[in-house]
Amino acid sequence: MHSTVWSDEDFCKILSDFPSLSREINGKRLVYLDNAASTLKSKSVIEKMADFYLYHYSNIHRAVHTLASEATVEYENAREKVAKFLNAESTEVIFTSGTTMGINFLVNSLVKSGLLSSGDTVLLSQVEHHANLVPWVRLSKFYGFKVEYIEADEKGVITTEAIREAKKHKPKIVSITGQSNVTGQQMPLELIRETFNDSILIIDGAQLVPHKKIDVKKLNIDFLVFSGHKMIAPTGIGVLYGKKELLERLEPFFYGGEMIDKVTFKDVSFNVLPYKFEAGTQHIAGAVGLGYTLDYLENLGFEKIEKHIEDLSSYLLSELMKLNFVEIYGPIDNSHKSLVSFNMIGVHPHDVAHILDENFGVATRSGHHCAQPLMSVLKKGSKIDFPNSTVRASVYFYNTKEDIDILVEGLKNVKRWFE
Amino acid sequence: MHSTVWSDEDFCKILSDFPSLSREINGKRLVYLDNAASTLKSKSVIEKMADFYLYHYSNIHRAVHTLASEATVEYENAREKVAKFLNAESTEVIFTSGTTMGINFLVNSLVKSGLLSSGDTVLLSQVEHHANLVPWVRLSKFYGFKVEYIEADEKGVITTEAIREAKKHKPKIVSITGQSNVTGQQMPLELIRETFNDSILIIDGAQLVPHKKIDVKKLNIDFLVFSGHKMIAPTGIGVLYGKKELLERLEPFFYGGEMIDKVTFKDVSFNVLPYKFEAGTQHIAGAVGLGYTLDYLENLGFEKIEKHIEDLSSYLLSELMKLNFVEIYGPIDNSHKSLVSFNMIGVHPHDVAHILDENFGVATRSGHHCAQPLMSVLKKGSKIDFPNSTVRASVYFYNTKEDIDILVEGLKNVKRWFE
Repeated sequence: MHSTVWSDEDFCKILSDFPSLSREINGKRLVYLDNAASTLKSKSVIEKMADFYLYHYSNIHRAVHTLASEATVEYENAREKVAKFLNAESTEVIFTSGTTMGINFLVNSLVKSGLLSSGDTVLLSQVEHHANLVPWVRLSKFYGFKVEYIEADEKGVITTEAIREAKKHKPKIVSITGQSNVTGQQMPLELIRETFNDSILIIDGAQLVPHKKIDVKKLNIDFLVFSGHKMIAPTGIGVLYGKKELLERLEPFFYGGEMIDKVTFKDVSFNVLPYKFEAGTQHIAGAVGLGYTLDYLENLGFEKIEKHIEDLSSYLLSELMKLNFVEIYGPIDNSHKSLVSFNMIGVHPHDVAHILDENFGVATRSGHHCAQPLMSVLKKGSKIDFPNSTVRASVYFYNTKEDIDILVEGLKNVKRWFE
Repeated sequence: MHSTVWSDEDFCKILSDFPSLSREINGKRLVYLDNAASTLKSKSVIEKMADFYLYHYSNIHRAVHTLASEATVEYENAREKVAKFLNAESTEVIFTSGTTMGINFLVNSLVKSGLLSSGDTVLLSQVEHHANLVPWVRLSKFYGFKVEYIEADEKGVITTEAIREAKKHKPKIVSITGQSNVTGQQMPLELIRETFNDSILIIDGAQLVPHKKIDVKKLNIDFLVFSGHKMIAPTGIGVLYGKKELLERLEPFFYGGEMIDKVTFKDVSFNVLPYKFEAGTQHIAGAVGLGYTLDYLENLGFEKIEKHIEDLSSYLLSELMKLNFVEIYGPIDNSHKSLVSFNMIGVHPHDVAHILDENFGVATRSGHHCAQPLMSVLKKGSKIDFPNSTVRASVYFYNTKEDIDILVEGLKNVKRWFE
């Protein structure tokens, strides 16, 4: 049995919808464990998007002709689907090009709107991806706000104590990942919201949203950003959710067509939400494709997807823990989700990833995973000659325990070769 | 004969590659004359992109596994193709989400790099699309630079005299459209370069690049921005070309993964060109699709495309000029390319566009075309009760003279109905 949530028949249908999985790498079946970087794409979604492109596409909003009406309806339907998915209002859903743009948007717009000023403190965590660290650190040099961190322990874990301790920074803004792309830790968002109840709370959902259905109202999140491409949607599309009352106060990040009300040679006034933030021709087919993706995931069942990934995550962690030549990073408990970062003692992660690919058809990722500062933390806690990078294996709903067995078998072989 | 550059057989092949063209609108064949807003999509390009998504896709640059290598090669090949298309170096080609992002990027980065300071003057023209006007006007309020304009005459034409006259503003930066999306005027770029030889020259190529092959070196352009979607490429992808020496000096606009060299909790250094400007996961399939598009257009022949559009533009202008109930905007000469904006005396443009769609299957666009300030100029020169908007008919290489005949027939019918 491949899954505890889908029958073998249903699961085979899922697998057959991802043609990449039928590929062979040097004669071995592709085992794709690089989902945290980006997921594979579904035939159903891509074909629906191609059909949209070829039969119903034109530019949106600005015209009265039939194609434009059809395209506008599809685009705005996609926004409705995202809103429903997050339990938000559709006016609170802004399409972006992805998580990175979402964070850059927020830093710039919060400053320009006076919601973040010189001397204010922004609180991040030490496990942030560069997407939620570099914009703050770099723009703090221009705008004079301070950047502080919730400290990670030597395994890269954000503890309850560290969260409470960081209260001393009195942050105006807390911007934190919902799930680390290196340690796999899913953050205690309720605790974070409760602890920083006076702060504007931004969640980097790049790793969280693909794995866990988020209710922005229930969690009382002020802003949530995520990308489509890590949840089988097309590339170049993402979402910024923002509370209406905050979005109303925010200066736009992009200026141009469609986001305006009146324009003269001297002055500009803006359109209503959400159009105020969507300047120029949007990634129309990407948004529509994200909408199709949400239909697809809903059809599979968000809870089932979560459970299947949960099963695989536990198995991945426990199987890797059995290997005495492997050092694992991140929490050793139930907060560890969807991916595991590790190192093989004495073998560089690039070599591990390379051999896994070439000899076993296993795609993993090696490197600093766009989290260089976190590498310096992990180095301190490491009992080996830490290479400032790790191997990362990450699963999605089309993976199986067999995939993990092949990974483990591969690692055992790598071990033997280097002996 | 459908075309002076392609045989009927070849032209039929082109038409059959755009499935939207086989659609019927209320029983009439679709006549798509809204190309200036966005072009239709080609089956060949979309199917190749779908194949990429389904068999070769993964995230790029950061991994050693096979799929990542394949996707990286495709992505960087696309950059090479764009570079060759523009006669640029590949390090000078930055992928963006489109023209609007390109201009916003430049305004912000020029300011942050000290290349545009408080008190400096930026020169635009009065025919700019909001994409090349709103960012400058709005950000001038934050950063204190001045915005001046090359004046348009009462037909919305930028004359040689007006260009020379604007020299008095001593602009630090000149940012101008290569072709107006309202008047269809192709700008005299050699003259503009020569006149403002000390200024940084930015060309908004959104309308120009789809219709005319641009050699950035020969024209000595400093920055060129354009979008893929107006030249049959996928949505959400565009290009910023910049001269290497200027790009080297520019502060990035987006911060995040991949664009960095070293990151600590306190500081950041940047990657080399072009990666310095491409933070986070890019619209990989969009860039790859843009590359396929350039292959496709090159295969058709850039000069042939230009000639076919030229033929249709002249025919469109001359046929509309025969209608005594129509007022035409823009130049009445050979600088008028690919589109015509007009009004029917006594009928609102929205009504014209609506009736053309509903009764004749003709897709045109009506409105201010994201150029509200220009509407105030056209109003002054108008001999009718100017509705602050126009009807716009715009052609691309899959259009025919017959399409224009149907448009004209439709307009004659609208005229009769309103009599």
